[in-house]
Amino acid sequence: MNGAESLVRTLVAGGINVCFTNPGTSEMHFVAALDKVDGIRCVLGLFEGVVTGAADGYWRMADKPAATLLHLGPGLGNGLANLHNARKASSGIVNIVGEHATYHIKHDAPLTSDIEGIARPVSAWVRTSPSARTVAADGAAAIVAARTAPGQIATLILPADTAWNEADGVAAVAPVAAPTPVSAEAIERCAKALRSGAPAMIMLTGRAVREHGLALAGRIATTTGARILAQGSNARIQRGAGRVPIERLPYPVDQALAVLKDIRHLILVGAKAPVAFFAYPDKPSVLTPDGCQIHQLSTMAEDSIGALEALADAVGAKKNGEVVQQPGRPGLPTGALTPDTLAAALGALLPEGAIVSDESVTTGRGFFKQTAGAPPHDWMNNMGGSIGLGMPLATGAAIACPDRKVVCLEGDGSGMYTVQALWTQARESLNVTTVVFANRTYAILRGELANVGAGTPGRKAADMLDIGRPDLDWVALARGMGVPASRATTAEEFNKQFAAGLAASGPYVIEAVV
Amino acid sequence: MNGAESLVRTLVAGGINVCFTNPGTSEMHFVAALDKVDGIRCVLGLFEGVVTGAADGYWRMADKPAATLLHLGPGLGNGLANLHNARKASSGIVNIVGEHATYHIKHDAPLTSDIEGIARPVSAWVRTSPSARTVAADGAAAIVAARTAPGQIATLILPADTAWNEADGVAAVAPVAAPTPVSAEAIERCAKALRSGAPAMIMLTGRAVREHGLALAGRIATTTGARILAQGSNARIQRGAGRVPIERLPYPVDQALAVLKDIRHLILVGAKAPVAFFAYPDKPSVLTPDGCQIHQLSTMAEDSIGALEALADAVGAKKNGEVVQQPGRPGLPTGALTPDTLAAALGALLPEGAIVSDESVTTGRGFFKQTAGAPPHDWMNNMGGSIGLGMPLATGAAIACPDRKVVCLEGDGSGMYTVQALWTQARESLNVTTVVFANRTYAILRGELANVGAGTPGRKAADMLDIGRPDLDWVALARGMGVPASRATTAEEFNKQFAAGLAASGPYVIEAVV
Repeated sequence: MNGAESLVRTLVAGGINVCFTNPGTSEMHFVAALDKVDGIRCVLGLFEGVVTGAADGYWRMADKPAATLLHLGPGLGNGLANLHNARKASSGIVNIVGEHATYHIKHDAPLTSDIEGIARPVSAWVRTSPSARTVAADGAAAIVAARTAPGQIATLILPADTAWNEADGVAAVAPVAAPTPVSAEAIERCAKALRSGAPAMIMLTGRAVREHGLALAGRIATTTGARILAQGSNARIQRGAGRVPIERLPYPVDQALAVLKDIRHLILVGAKAPVAFFAYPDKPSVLTPDGCQIHQLSTMAEDSIGALEALADAVGAKKNGEVVQQPGRPGLPTGALTPDTLAAALGALLPEGAIVSDESVTTGRGFFKQTAGAPPHDWMNNMGGSIGLGMPLATGAAIACPDRKVVCLEGDGSGMYTVQALWTQARESLNVTTVVFANRTYAILRGELANVGAGTPGRKAADMLDIGRPDLDWVALARGMGVPASRATTAEEFNKQFAAGLAASGPYVIEAVV
Repeated sequence: MNGAESLVRTLVAGGINVCFTNPGTSEMHFVAALDKVDGIRCVLGLFEGVVTGAADGYWRMADKPAATLLHLGPGLGNGLANLHNARKASSGIVNIVGEHATYHIKHDAPLTSDIEGIARPVSAWVRTSPSARTVAADGAAAIVAARTAPGQIATLILPADTAWNEADGVAAVAPVAAPTPVSAEAIERCAKALRSGAPAMIMLTGRAVREHGLALAGRIATTTGARILAQGSNARIQRGAGRVPIERLPYPVDQALAVLKDIRHLILVGAKAPVAFFAYPDKPSVLTPDGCQIHQLSTMAEDSIGALEALADAVGAKKNGEVVQQPGRPGLPTGALTPDTLAAALGALLPEGAIVSDESVTTGRGFFKQTAGAPPHDWMNNMGGSIGLGMPLATGAAIACPDRKVVCLEGDGSGMYTVQALWTQARESLNVTTVVFANRTYAILRGELANVGAGTPGRKAADMLDIGRPDLDWVALARGMGVPASRATTAEEFNKQFAAGLAASGPYVIEAVV
């Protein structure tokens, strides 16, 4: 078998069953090998940001990596922003990036570039395979790197001749080490802080905001009086009726400062010490108050669940002592379509088992509260702040969980970065209902212009923040990519369209004019 | 004035009058400064690949750099593929990339990344400005770097506090050195080769394929019997009736080998020694035959026009001795819409002064010949091979040349990468007529799969090459972004729609179903 086939067979042997692709000439042997080998589903994206964002969504829901297939340095470049987001979410991805044949690189043909240089800022592991005989082993190492806790970006660069030359066969994939256990000393330090009686907060993310982690944190909170809070953004929160409810740290600095102002002990479970998303003149970068002691119970690479179990024991938390969310939905809203009525409609209609891909930016700041008592569901945020993740993330989640409904909550500004995701949803008949909040502006920037003290926007500045003139027609855009769509301008219209989208098989887009 | 204002005023003083933007929070002071300072037009793109590709097109037509405004590392990442293309075209661009405030970077907030690392593979010059007092001088240095022959990518990273803190004022922009003159020895070596009587070819690109360079090359060819040929891709060829006609080196390796097979002396004017775009098993990388001597008359950084003038003198070429293209257009085609009838329609209708942005890939291989006798026009290719440049390039060219008609020839696969360019064309009412060749496939890859010997595509592989299922509806996509559009399925329909598009003020899209 050739190198490409040895690599694809190694990927399948290593548990990789999906490859999100946007291939070119240098990847043709790899494509032929994907064709030949069973056990790996190929999903085409028309733009590489769709491919890499989908791989992020797949990891979050499948808890194992997908592969991507990208065309040389520029193809990787197009996928870079969503790889940045994936890296910040600690998602594991195996990127296969085509390269010219080893002997061709020196000729500096048009597509020649420094692929390793482009890969390094977003990758924990980068390797250019030197020959067809090493490709399988390099692929196996990439899988191990991607699966290493908490999940990492591994980029394997595949010169074309290493794909077409004769290989030695499939490589064995080494077992992946379990997350590092947390020391007894760290647990005792946190337990002591919680026992001190001073106001304490446990800030969680990663595995700790899944159902079991939240139950443990909830028990600890009940026993000690500590508050629990999730990071501002999280890869996947399991929430809804019957689960321990958790709020997130607000994005606006003043609100975040207010939430944290009385805390004397902050215990971090997977989370990082809270800092402002951006710096602003006259506002602090560090959000914890002076005198607040920060205790890292576990990092993302460590075993947060084991640490919470040990901490629950250390503070004598009662089994089943956690307070869970009672079921409850708001009534269907009527009247104007506003962030508030949209929040109510989501709360009223979100189906059990839904997976929410939330890139609603400013419009969605009230969505979390109104959906708290909906049936159990998962909620995914953009962890890296590079907008344009929502629709790809939804796409990958839908591939990972074909029996669940994905709800994508998308800003109109954000959605345009990777709008090509809709085509992949149509091709693969994915169960994704997308709501685009059409406020015709980068609304967040209007606030930020004021926040940074840059004054009131004049005409030229306003034009840079405003994405109307002309208005985007999301119904036309969606239909142009084969996705049925409709426009809602009142709460009543939205309720009806959202219910219809959820009931439909396959993708659906609603332009919610707010 | 603050750092942002000092930088914007320096840009304007340095001759930068257009800024293609996709800003975020960290760039708000820069946006406010753009608002305040006259002399710089701001053009918003809804995706950064539009922004950087437009800056490339602007350079090619204006012969001076535009600025771009990008949001931190991921925003730069989204612009990377078209910066790669711009670098390969030797286009000068001044990228302004926002960054967190200097004191905020260490907190590793969600958008923190290695911006310099992302910039380096595509930039000749990279600098992170350390303070508001250095920003203007750093901007002046960036302009000089961008304008240094043949044109370079300069990336200035602007931490937010260097924008909002107090600055020292506007910096002087140093004069830019003229392109390096070519040595008398190089000219004599090339003259000697041309006088030898052995079959010779002059391969040109850069300034040498503009009108004056081609006239000089044509005179040399007339006198010496040498053939002239342009590189496979060129930033801007000036062609049409009354100009010296020039063909390009074909993309398919076998055709390129056939064109070059008898050449004994190859003289390179700006051009690089010809190599295959990709490597293929059993085909050579180097396209010149054994025994062909290669003489570099000038590199892209050198003065190709001066070198051609000296060479023309050295071989005794007669003034006005060049053979120019006679006017002549094919008749309007009838019947089925095919690459051949499309070529005839373009030849019949291309208006005088048109600027062609050619990313027609496989469909367009016959376009060059049929448009040779059209009235004078410019023809731009993708130099870096990363598809998704055509529509942004057309956008930037239209900003540079508001009085000319831009014709964008775009593959349907290529067009989807940066489809957001259409919105910018609508907002700015740009005179761009786009023809999308809807063959519902990455047609080039079907040929390449066979070329690399990867066999006949099976179902999974065919799905990776085929972009139908569902078909893209380009009329809907264009209208969704505010651009009028129509679909042509016969030559007669196409003739009528293309003429209407050219006659219209503002952008127009034709989906040509082939």
